[in-house]
Amino acid sequence: MPDDEATLPIDELLRAVEAEDQSAVRAMAEEMHYADLAQAFQELEEEQHGLFLKTIGPALAADMIVELPDSLIEEALGAFSPSELKVLFHELSDDDRVDILQDVGDEARLRFLGLLGPEDEELTRSLLKYDHDTAGGRMTTRIGRVFASQTVKQAIEMLRRSQESTETLSRIFVVDEKGRLIGKLRFRDLAFNTWDTPVRDIMREIGTERVLATADQEEAANMLLKYDLIALPVVDEFGHLLGIVTHDDAMEILQEESTEDIEKIAGIGGEQSEETYLNTTILTQFRRRAGWLTGLAFVSILSGYVMMRFGSVLSQVFLLSLFLPMVVAAGGNTGGQASTMVIRAMSLGEIDEDCTWQVAWKELRTGFFLGALLGTCMAAFTLVLLPFFHFALPPGLTLGKVAFTVAVALTTQVTSATFLGSLLPLGARAAKLDPAVVSAPAIAAIVDVSGMVIYFSVARAILGL
Amino acid sequence: MPDDEATLPIDELLRAVEAEDQSAVRAMAEEMHYADLAQAFQELEEEQHGLFLKTIGPALAADMIVELPDSLIEEALGAFSPSELKVLFHELSDDDRVDILQDVGDEARLRFLGLLGPEDEELTRSLLKYDHDTAGGRMTTRIGRVFASQTVKQAIEMLRRSQESTETLSRIFVVDEKGRLIGKLRFRDLAFNTWDTPVRDIMREIGTERVLATADQEEAANMLLKYDLIALPVVDEFGHLLGIVTHDDAMEILQEESTEDIEKIAGIGGEQSEETYLNTTILTQFRRRAGWLTGLAFVSILSGYVMMRFGSVLSQVFLLSLFLPMVVAAGGNTGGQASTMVIRAMSLGEIDEDCTWQVAWKELRTGFFLGALLGTCMAAFTLVLLPFFHFALPPGLTLGKVAFTVAVALTTQVTSATFLGSLLPLGARAAKLDPAVVSAPAIAAIVDVSGMVIYFSVARAILGL
Repeated sequence: MPDDEATLPIDELLRAVEAEDQSAVRAMAEEMHYADLAQAFQELEEEQHGLFLKTIGPALAADMIVELPDSLIEEALGAFSPSELKVLFHELSDDDRVDILQDVGDEARLRFLGLLGPEDEELTRSLLKYDHDTAGGRMTTRIGRVFASQTVKQAIEMLRRSQESTETLSRIFVVDEKGRLIGKLRFRDLAFNTWDTPVRDIMREIGTERVLATADQEEAANMLLKYDLIALPVVDEFGHLLGIVTHDDAMEILQEESTEDIEKIAGIGGEQSEETYLNTTILTQFRRRAGWLTGLAFVSILSGYVMMRFGSVLSQVFLLSLFLPMVVAAGGNTGGQASTMVIRAMSLGEIDEDCTWQVAWKELRTGFFLGALLGTCMAAFTLVLLPFFHFALPPGLTLGKVAFTVAVALTTQVTSATFLGSLLPLGARAAKLDPAVVSAPAIAAIVDVSGMVIYFSVARAILGL
Repeated sequence: MPDDEATLPIDELLRAVEAEDQSAVRAMAEEMHYADLAQAFQELEEEQHGLFLKTIGPALAADMIVELPDSLIEEALGAFSPSELKVLFHELSDDDRVDILQDVGDEARLRFLGLLGPEDEELTRSLLKYDHDTAGGRMTTRIGRVFASQTVKQAIEMLRRSQESTETLSRIFVVDEKGRLIGKLRFRDLAFNTWDTPVRDIMREIGTERVLATADQEEAANMLLKYDLIALPVVDEFGHLLGIVTHDDAMEILQEESTEDIEKIAGIGGEQSEETYLNTTILTQFRRRAGWLTGLAFVSILSGYVMMRFGSVLSQVFLLSLFLPMVVAAGGNTGGQASTMVIRAMSLGEIDEDCTWQVAWKELRTGFFLGALLGTCMAAFTLVLLPFFHFALPPGLTLGKVAFTVAVALTTQVTSATFLGSLLPLGARAAKLDPAVVSAPAIAAIVDVSGMVIYFSVARAILGL
């Protein structure tokens, strides 16, 4: 969340837009960070968008547009003439340009590609080959690159020539004559060494800190996280250096993936878009949630069927109703906890394929202890508090027997639900599915059914109904 | 997840440890990234730890130990003698040193502080003043810092002298005579300008891209994310530059916070530690989950109480049991979806205080549409499929009336549960609580009760029971 200082310039800008003071708007926009500019843009009324964009011009608008939610990008680009769009696309870094072209419609993409210079167009087309969610799809090719055979002086001159077009010189990568990645340097390594030092002598070799262009973006982000990198080099299958994925992309990727996990666990479907919550329409919200809800509702009918079949048990001992929702819900809660822990641990790369049984065994024991605790609590509740309420019990039944029933049913339900909650995501992965598809509501719906069966069967056996 | 290439050197190292080939272990450890080294360390047997640490020595072990889970850090440090520990602590960057000292026990902290040189000790003590989860607690003070009044030549010489102790020169910060932050530079800005250029002329001014040392670490991480920064300057209330929070810290913070959100939403309590899932003991797991489970179980007894009170309704029309679990669960599912969406959007800074009613109104409508959809599905199911099963109905009741009951109850339950699911986290924030304390299971437990009341009341009214 931005602090109070940060909102000040945005508010000032909004006031200037309101007052239609175009020169003030332009001056302020020049001083502002593109992320703040994007925030201000989204607070404007829709009919103010066009004039605002024209006022700040394509060069300043370029970086800002990248920060906008998908639904606003095509509209914002529509405010500019073809010649202004040329300027805008030229301002963008290559990965941002590709991002935008992937977000707009097919017709607009072709039109925009035609506006690029021949060099930019070729580069953009080659990057568009990679899926949006691969390392290649997220990389920038404008990187500092020198040859191992160069001297420090030659390397600095080469970097100086490419300075304008380079996204970051924080890390400089070293290639051999064939363009294969072999090492890296920091700018200070060049600056603090004598001019005739060979690059090969001062570079650090790069071992495993690289990623294939076709690898999933999450793999790239996790490597940047693991190795604390500013930039991760992207290579093809022969080791040729193609580009880098930068730290800011990695942060965005990790945030997107976390949001996706959270939503899937809660039973919200569909791809997580780059839209913010408030920018998502009710129709989209409806679509993403309706599927799971409807499916789960039909699973719940099974629970109802079990309840109906055992209806006579409830009408013989009304008191059993008091604990039914609790036994059932306890399974859903603990199963959801277990699956959530396991899914998150898998996302963080903490659980390998070969610890499946270690995890399941751990959860089985945790589940048993949790079930025993709950069972004991509820048995104590039944024996200590319920006598004050003078519930009518059929002849031959005692509160002691009811307490025992509840304790046994709860322990069984919680143990089995915890075990199942950990096994289902592990099973999903073994079946090459995303573990997060096993949402907490899905587990709850399943163990609702088993909970009903467990509760009524235990009651029948112990109470002799 | 590491790719196949990445696991190779780790496996090789493990084989060398197994073969007790100490010179090979040392040679390999020198070539490896500390993150890989930490991974290898955790795969060793516990009795191999001591020899392994002695073999690689304190200098190489330093960065590796920072990457270990909390529970292993104090044990690992115990393998070294006081003189080796001096070397180890000297190798660490100041923020990592503080991190470690915050993780160990009080007695160990005092002992380790005594091993630092006077300068390091003073610095470390001053950093320990900041809470671990503030910007000050995560910052490093070893930064590139130059004065606005210097020339490029003076600035480069100053940086060269402090080269050894500086964590990153990717961003160099510019201060005035009083040490107040006023701008920033990239190394290339110095390298590609003439030596007599004043720093003031080539620096870029820093506006809102700074954070107070006492601010929450999440605020710092979100600013790094928003502004795509490599390093965020940390200042005191007077604007004096104290240090920086770097991009890799920001990534860790964001991952930790996401995990915490996910766990809280699933009803898992307590602070999220830096432990991995497999390193957490069953006792810890039990403690973190038992609280919510037990509390929710008692809330569920309320549902049971409602069910018991309305028991006569169920025994008059057995068919109503078929839909009871479904109506109740649909509320829990949709309420959980709504709260999850709202909590995540708040974490991402997408919902300000002043859009509370906008969000609630949006969820109210989404909830109504979802409820109407479910209600229609279930009414159709009742009218089209149930006649085939020839359920006995009391005189005067028709399947049409039952279908109408289910549809009305479902729509009411889903609408109110969705509305409540969005309002509770917003209310928690208004009450200065963490919105994520409103876990999905808690919402489910609450709307279970209201669902029972809604279902039975609607049934009584429509069916005249």
